[in-house]
Order: sequence, then structure tokens, then C-alpha cells
Amino acid sequence: MLPSGDVTESHFLEVLDLLSPGDIIVEGANSNFHDSLRRHAHVREKGIRMLDAGVSGGLVGAEEGYAIMVGGDKDTFAFCTPLFEALACNGGYNLVGPGGAGHYVKMVHNAIEYGMMQAIAEGYDLLANGTFKDLDLPTITKLWNHGTIIQSFLLRMAGQALDKSPSLEYLKPFVEDSGEGRWAATEAMEHRIPFVVNTYALHARYISRDKNSLAFRMLAAMRNEFGGHA
Amino acid sequence: MLPSGDVTESHFLEVLDLLSPGDIIVEGANSNFHDSLRRHAHVREKGIRMLDAGVSGGLVGAEEGYAIMVGGDKDTFAFCTPLFEALACNGGYNLVGPGGAGHYVKMVHNAIEYGMMQAIAEGYDLLANGTFKDLDLPTITKLWNHGTIIQSFLLRMAGQALDKSPSLEYLKPFVEDSGEGRWAATEAMEHRIPFVVNTYALHARYISRDKNSLAFRMLAAMRNEFGGHA
Amino acid sequence: MLPSGDVTESHFLEVLDLLSPGDIIVEGANSNFHDSLRRHAHVREKGIRMLDAGVSGGLVGAEEGYAIMVGGDKDTFAFCTPLFEALACNGGYNLVGPGGAGHYVKMVHNAIEYGMMQAIAEGYDLLANGTFKDLDLPTITKLWNHGTIIQSFLLRMAGQALDKSPSLEYLKPFVEDSGEGRWAATEAMEHRIPFVVNTYALHARYISRDKNSLAFRMLAAMRNEFGGHA
Amino acid sequence: MLPSGDVTESHFLEVLDLLSPGDIIVEGANSNFHDSLRRHAHVREKGIRMLDAGVSGGLVGAEEGYAIMVGGDKDTFAFCTPLFEALACNGGYNLVGPGGAGHYVKMVHNAIEYGMMQAIAEGYDLLANGTFKDLDLPTITKLWNHGTIIQSFLLRMAGQALDKSPSLEYLKPFVEDSGEGRWAATEAMEHRIPFVVNTYALHARYISRDKNSLAFRMLAAMRNEFGGHA
Repeated sequence: MLPSGDVTESHFLEVLDLLSPGDIIVEGANSNFHDSLRRHAHVREKGIRMLDAGVSGGLVGAEEGYAIMVGGDKDTFAFCTPLFEALACNGGYNLVGPGGAGHYVKMVHNAIEYGMMQAIAEGYDLLANGTFKDLDLPTITKLWNHGTIIQSFLLRMAGQALDKSPSLEYLKPFVEDSGEGRWAATEAMEHRIPFVVNTYALHARYISRDKNSLAFRMLAAMRNEFGGHA
Repeated sequence: MLPSGDVTESHFLEVLDLLSPGDIIVEGANSNFHDSLRRHAHVREKGIRMLDAGVSGGLVGAEEGYAIMVGGDKDTFAFCTPLFEALACNGGYNLVGPGGAGHYVKMVHNAIEYGMMQAIAEGYDLLANGTFKDLDLPTITKLWNHGTIIQSFLLRMAGQALDKSPSLEYLKPFVEDSGEGRWAATEAMEHRIPFVVNTYALHARYISRDKNSLAFRMLAAMRNEFGGHA
Repeated sequence: MLPSGDVTESHFLEVLDLLSPGDIIVEGANSNFHDSLRRHAHVREKGIRMLDAGVSGGLVGAEEGYAIMVGGDKDTFAFCTPLFEALACNGGYNLVGPGGAGHYVKMVHNAIEYGMMQAIAEGYDLLANGTFKDLDLPTITKLWNHGTIIQSFLLRMAGQALDKSPSLEYLKPFVEDSGEGRWAATEAMEHRIPFVVNTYALHARYISRDKNSLAFRMLAAMRNEFGGHA
Repeated sequence: MLPSGDVTESHFLEVLDLLSPGDIIVEGANSNFHDSLRRHAHVREKGIRMLDAGVSGGLVGAEEGYAIMVGGDKDTFAFCTPLFEALACNGGYNLVGPGGAGHYVKMVHNAIEYGMMQAIAEGYDLLANGTFKDLDLPTITKLWNHGTIIQSFLLRMAGQALDKSPSLEYLKPFVEDSGEGRWAATEAMEHRIPFVVNTYALHARYISRDKNSLAFRMLAAMRNEFGGHA
């Protein structure tokens, strides 16, 4: 699997030259679904078949098997199931819709991931810095992963990190993002779909990376001007 | 376990009259942690011991065992472990901090729950109403619960609901809330802790219940006045 | 001035055919600035000069004069000042940057407008529905427009609307949007700029228009499943 | 006028001792309206009359006259108008409701102020850091204050600040808040009123002041754990 964007595009075009009608190409680069739709149309003209496969799971997936969200037609998917069976965890692959839908569903997955992560991260801030100052975060996290409403893979990841350092002091307050959250937020606006927390989760990461925010300075500036606040 | 608030308060006072020094009271009403702190102080004066126990799990917890977050001192907790062992799921109880911390940690849990639910709900809106109109939501949900980053108890609940009705047409777009999300949002402000998505998730529920929003009408009114928009 | 989009594009191309090198075209359709940038490049090849002019003011502007934000080069702007002088209110036009900047600055203006409107609208909800139930909103609005920090054209519009109906009962809680808020939110994400309230103000309008929100139904569905909430 | 809180409370009690039935006390400390309601009840028992007066205007108000939002009964207000006439700008005072309403309306005013400021501040970030890098912010601000929909006192303040330094480089990205935004956000939740941007504007200031955010570090931590992101 390649990173989405130019690398995938050039490989896609190279590979396409080598294929004959009836051949199958599986595009698993977590591409923008608009690119996948375009590629599906492109290969269809040449009689080549294609599946787009959104892949989730990260490092854990590499060990325990991935989740694979596949877009395309049923016959092509059926033909390729041995491939997905080999890569995916148990129960972790399926055809989720027509061409493009694989990457679309993966994109939505990532947007939800951003929102859930933000919900969890804010919760830990309140655990650590509210009325109680010395709560045992690793213990709480382990408990939360047994029988609570919020038990989740992401809390398991939070627990792994807290086991290394209960105060996460080895980390900078600086959060990267991949493109998928932005694609999802853009798609939501294209279709006038309210998408508030998953969009904010993206903006929160932008905030984390802008250590000399003009917006914050402008807020301070306006306060200065009308209130003489130092 | 009783609902938090007046019912719990009156029972608490009744029970307190019957107890002798050294007795133990376990307050498991998912109370506001400020009430728990006050009750801990109250019983301490009388030499009575107390644990506050935040309980999560809902209907599933009733079958599979609850998660119980306990606040209090170590000896009292140790003495009561058989009780928690009987009620909790495997690994699903622990002492999370001093008196009051049980309900505090449960409160934060619920705030995270609100944020995660909002992240998931918005994602389904994008799945159903974006570029693709006929994605198979139950199938996608099952897949998402195998090997993805967002696999979680809440997605399992989403899957149960979608299995009953893939379009959720039997439900009204009207969402209740219990007090804990509000307590958490208030606590965050008291301590100047950014708490954006978990607070918004609460406000989203308020929006869902206000079908003749004055705010929306005021927006329409201002547009009318400056733009002549009908 | 034409509405942005296809109508403007076809007129632009028609007019372009009639122009000779050195002629000037003023594009005042509140177009997407990407379209303006493209048109500037297009006319430049033909030796034709162009200004893009973002126009604000609505119905009041039609009476009192518009505000006009102009993008282009200094000479062309200087040549056209009599035109802007005739249309704009006193002090209400200027060159704000190179080609495309006129519509860019207008786009940002509209995004701020959305955010300010949302701030005001929420405030009126709190005035009307909080602890006090019978506050005199028209009187308060008039007062707020004399000497307060929030005095503004938009509050003047709010006052006009409230003078017609203090409860705004003649309006539906349904808010339209033009494209500019969405363009601004998209541009912010392209440049990784946090743009939270101005983006939310757009999503709030989407929420106002979706009376059977799947997201809200999904929230209710998850609550049902884990809590048995009716 | 005193700062709200303990100082006002102790002065209030001192002054109260010196007053006789029929005397009037004007409480102008921008107090929490709950305190004002309590004080109104307190003085009423003693036959003393009271007005609560929320004051806006800051440094500019000190020169041009304040806006004063008064809560209390009509007769007491009528008796005190010469006082308000002397302090307020032209048109800048009125009775806005019963006892407590003065500070309530001032509190809502401040919440709107926070939201409007955030809308403006984000807009400037997009002006400065988007596709165009060298826009002349002071010029744009002056133009925006002539004839646009967003012309406002706050933009005038933004313009004053930008005239001192077009890049606001003399300011730290660190924004204080007074209590009123928090009181308003709390009041909104008490009454289940959606209050999204005005609440977020408060949280944004908290974010600006937390330079080693645990929430951001937790986001980075979870990314590390599931993705091996450095």
C-alpha cells in the first residue's frame, strides 16, 4: 500500500499500462474517494476491473490483521476475497458499496476517529486538571476498558501510552493530521451535512500546531483597545 | 441504586440515622461529585465510612456486569470488594481516588461518552447523505467493529440499532441528556479547561429538542433585514 | 452585478469577446476567488485589464451606498475610482490587494458575518429563555446599539426585526446560506487555519434545515440500545 | 464601580448598615446576576430600594459615555435617571427588566462580545495566512467599517490595534477572560439553551493559555500508539 496522492497516481498509471482487459487492480492507498471514482471510470474504459480498498488498523492491524473496506462490483470483490482474507483480521473486510465507496467509508471512519480522539483527550484533561489532581490515569483507563459505555480501541491506545508515562510528559502538545479528516469535512459541507465535532477535531489539531496564533493575538489586541487590559 | 438528587439525599439521611460508627455506606447513585464530597464530610464527622461508586454499563451491564468506579479510602474499598466483585464485570471495578472521585470519574466518563456518540452520529449522517446514497449501514458497522481504530462499545450499540432498522426511521430526532454531561462541562469551566466537543455534544442535544429555536429565527430575521432574503 | 457561478461565467466569456486590449472588465459578482484568479489570468493573456469587486451592504447598501473591496493593480483601480465613488458609501471602497483579493476579502467578510450573527442569535436565545422570561428585547437592542462593545450593524438589523415582532414569531427556524461561508471554511482547511466559530455558524444553518436529522436519530438510537431510554 | 465578588459584597454590607428605609443603592459592579437577585431580596426586607446596573464601554466609554443596563422597579429607576444621564452616552441607558436583569443583560452582552470577537479574530487569521499573504489589514479594516454588514465597534478596536502594528507582533497569543462569559455559558446550560459559539469563544481563551495542553499530548499519544507516528 502506498501513500495517497502523486505516488499512487504515477504507480496507478504505470500499472495500468501493463494490464489487459479483465485484469484487476486493487487501489489500497487510502486515496481521496474523488480520485478513486476517477480511476474507476478510467479503468472501466479499458475493460479493466478495479476495487478500492480503505484500510484501517495501523500498527495493531499489522499484527492482528487489518480492517478493509472495499468498493467495487460484487463479482470482482468475490474473486479477490482470498486476498482480503489473508490481510484482514477475522470479520474485518467486506464490500461496502460501489466503486469509490471503499475509500469513502474509510474517510468517514477517520473523521469519526478524529472526533472520538478529541472527546477522549478532553476527558483526560478534566481527569488530570479539575478538582482532583492526583487521579491514577492508567488505572482509570484500564477500568474504563472493562464494561463501560466508552470502552474502545482508542481507549486501549490511551492506556498503552499512559502505561509508558502517566503524565505523557515525553510528548509535545502538537498534533498532526492526515488528509482524510479534511476530505470528510469538505464533503460534509458539499452536501450541507452538519459535521461539527469531527470538523472541530481537525481544527483543534491546527490550533495545536500554531504556537503564535494571529487569532489569539487579535483577541488580546481588541481587549487591549477597548478595555486597556494589559 | 437510586437516581441522583433529592431521592438519594433523603435516603442518605434516613440511612445515616440507622448507622453506627464504623459502618459503611456505599453511595452508588451517579450523584454530582460535589454532593458526594459533602456526604463524605458529613459521615466522617459521625465516624461512619463511605464509598462513592459511579456505575456504568446500562442494559448490557445488567447482563454482563457493570463497571464500577469507586472513590474512598483503601481499607474501606478493600473491605467492600466482595460487593463490587459480585456486581461488576471481570476487571470492571477499582478504587479510582479519594472520596468523591468515584462519581467524578463517572462524570468524566459520561462526558466522553457524549462526545464519542456525537462523533459517531455525525459520521453516519455523512455515510447516509453524502455522495453515496445507498451504503449498507449495518454491514459497514459490523465491519467497523472488527479491526478498525473506531471499534467500540458505542459502535456495537449503533449496529444493534441499525439491525432493527437500517434507516432508524422509527426514531424521532430528539435526544435527551442526563445531568452528568452538564456537570462535566461546568466543572471544566470552573477549572478553565478547554472542553469543546464534549460540551458541544450536550448543546447538540439541546438543539435537537428545540424545534422552534429563537436563535435560528433571529438568524433568519437578520438575513431578512439586511438582504431582503425571503 | 450578477449572481456568482454559471451566469457570471457565461457573461464573462461573452463580454470578453467584445473587448480589446487595454479595455477593463470589473467582475462584481461576489464570485469564488478561485474563479476570479482564473479570470484575471485569462484576461491578462489578451491584454485586457480586470478588477474583481466584492460588494457588501445588502438592502441598506442599496440606499446608503455599498462597501466595495477591489482586487487588481493600482493603475486600473485608479482609473475606475469614479465608478466606485458613485456606487460606494462614503469611505466604502478601496483596493485591498492584487487580482482575486477583492472577492477573497469579501469571502472572509461573509464568514465573519456568519460568526457574528451566530453569536448574536445565541445571545437572544439566552435573553428570552433563561432566568428572565419577559425581558423587553427591542428596548435592550436599542440600548445595546448605544455605547456598548457589541454595537454593530447586525444588532441594528436585529433591532429592526424585533421592532416588527418582539418574539419573531412570523419567522421559521430555518436559515439559508450563500456559498461564501463554505468557501471560507474550505480555504481555512486548505491552509490549516483554525476557523471554528465561523465554520460552526455554517453548520448551525445546516442543522436548522434538517428537520429529521439522522445524526440526532442515531444519538437517540444508541441511548436506547445501551440504556433502554424510551 | 467596584470589581464583582468579595470586594463588592463587603462594601454592599457596609453601605447597607448606613442606609434607612426608602434609601436607594445602585449596584454597578457587573456582578453575577445571582448575587444581584440575592441582594435585591436582602434590601427589600429592610425597605431599602436597589437598582443593579450593568455597565459597558471600557476605555472608550470613559470618554464617550457608558452604556448602562439597569434592573429594578420603574419608580426607583425614574428617580435615578439623572445619575445615569450623567454617566451614559446619548441613548445609552435604560431599564431592561426587574431586579437582577441589569446584570443579566450585561452578562449576555459580554457573551455575545466573546463570540463576535472570536468570529473577527478567526477572520483575520484567514486574511493573513490564506492564499494571499500580504493583504493590507489596516486598510481592509477601515473599509470594513464603512458600509459593510460587519461594521461594528469591535472592528473599530481591531483597526486601532492594527494601526499600531499591522502584524500585532507586540502581542502574545494569550487571552484572558472575565467571569461573565462563564456565567452566561453556565446559565445557558441550566436552561438547556444551545450556546455554542459564545461558549466556544470562552474555551478558545482557555486553549490560548494552556501551552502544554494534556489534551493535545493525549491526541499525539494515541496517534503514536496506533499508528507509530513519531
